[in-house]
Amino acid sequence: MKFSPLLSELIRTLRYLPGVGQKTAQRMTFHLLERNRQGALELATALHNAMEHVQHCRQCRNFTESDLCEICASPARQQTGVLCVVETPQDVMAVEQTSEFKGLYFVLMGHLSPIDGIGPDDIGLDRLAEMLDEHPIEEVILATNPTVEGEATAHYIAQMCRSRQIKASRIAHGVPVGGELEYLDGSTLMHAFNGRREL
Amino acid sequence: MKFSPLLSELIRTLRYLPGVGQKTAQRMTFHLLERNRQGALELATALHNAMEHVQHCRQCRNFTESDLCEICASPARQQTGVLCVVETPQDVMAVEQTSEFKGLYFVLMGHLSPIDGIGPDDIGLDRLAEMLDEHPIEEVILATNPTVEGEATAHYIAQMCRSRQIKASRIAHGVPVGGELEYLDGSTLMHAFNGRREL
Repeated sequence: MKFSPLLSELIRTLRYLPGVGQKTAQRMTFHLLERNRQGALELATALHNAMEHVQHCRQCRNFTESDLCEICASPARQQTGVLCVVETPQDVMAVEQTSEFKGLYFVLMGHLSPIDGIGPDDIGLDRLAEMLDEHPIEEVILATNPTVEGEATAHYIAQMCRSRQIKASRIAHGVPVGGELEYLDGSTLMHAFNGRREL
Repeated sequence: MKFSPLLSELIRTLRYLPGVGQKTAQRMTFHLLERNRQGALELATALHNAMEHVQHCRQCRNFTESDLCEICASPARQQTGVLCVVETPQDVMAVEQTSEFKGLYFVLMGHLSPIDGIGPDDIGLDRLAEMLDEHPIEEVILATNPTVEGEATAHYIAQMCRSRQIKASRIAHGVPVGGELEYLDGSTLMHAFNGRREL
């Protein structure tokens, strides 16, 4: 015996969610049918609306359903003259949660990776160039990940800034706050030593 | 900064899924937006269809979109004269996967639990009584869970069968195949001893 067609289809499509396999999808299906049909209908509507209407912000490429996202549309943020370049929308959220940074963002939605055929235009660097030309940006903070691709992307963007006489800086890499030297990998420790500051 | 309204709504509703918290919901949202919008739309449709059309089988109370489920509608199954009573649709799947049992099912969708206000009618025992009266059932196999409530439910249904001169049997509880006595709980081991069979 198999599940009825509608149940099979729901179980199959739930597996599109990351980290959800056959058993979890079955559990989700029965949970929703038995306990929360209203919630499931709300989820169906939310999925449909988000997939149909959420696009990239015209300026920073972050996800939004408006033409300009909330951050890009804020005059206070534009006045800071500081632009933070990150790889993903999740990185924007991580930086925002510190409440320290008050400038604009640019979301690459990836990183340079010639081996995968991802070049400057695929991560929107043409749009970043326009943004640097049109807005009074004074400093670009490069907050890409400390991976080989992230570093390469940061250096590429730093050169774009240099040719426009805009200051480019890289976020510090070193010992995490609360971390212990003993358990740190050598690469991070090397970064921490090379990036030392006078007290 | 918060997520845009459509993203927030999607993250909120994804949390209706069992085992999905805020962080997982965010990861799912970005995964679908970045990599599988088509799949997400399929999921939205599947959710909508299942929640709107999947109901309980008129006879066995299992989930189905037809009036009678595939098993109840099968003449071969009706002829066996054996009925297996289980607590949940997942239990039906578990028994079906053994390919041993070829009879009909009755799905309680729960168990008797006076403390939670769940009485015989809430688990469809009125419908089970009709089924026993209308169909030529010769044996009822009680496969409720070996919990206090499951045992109470099994005994209640056994009495219903007795008053109709129908044989009622309980599935065996004992040492699982592949299990080792050393690691088994006392209650299971006691069941295994009490249910011993002559060789």
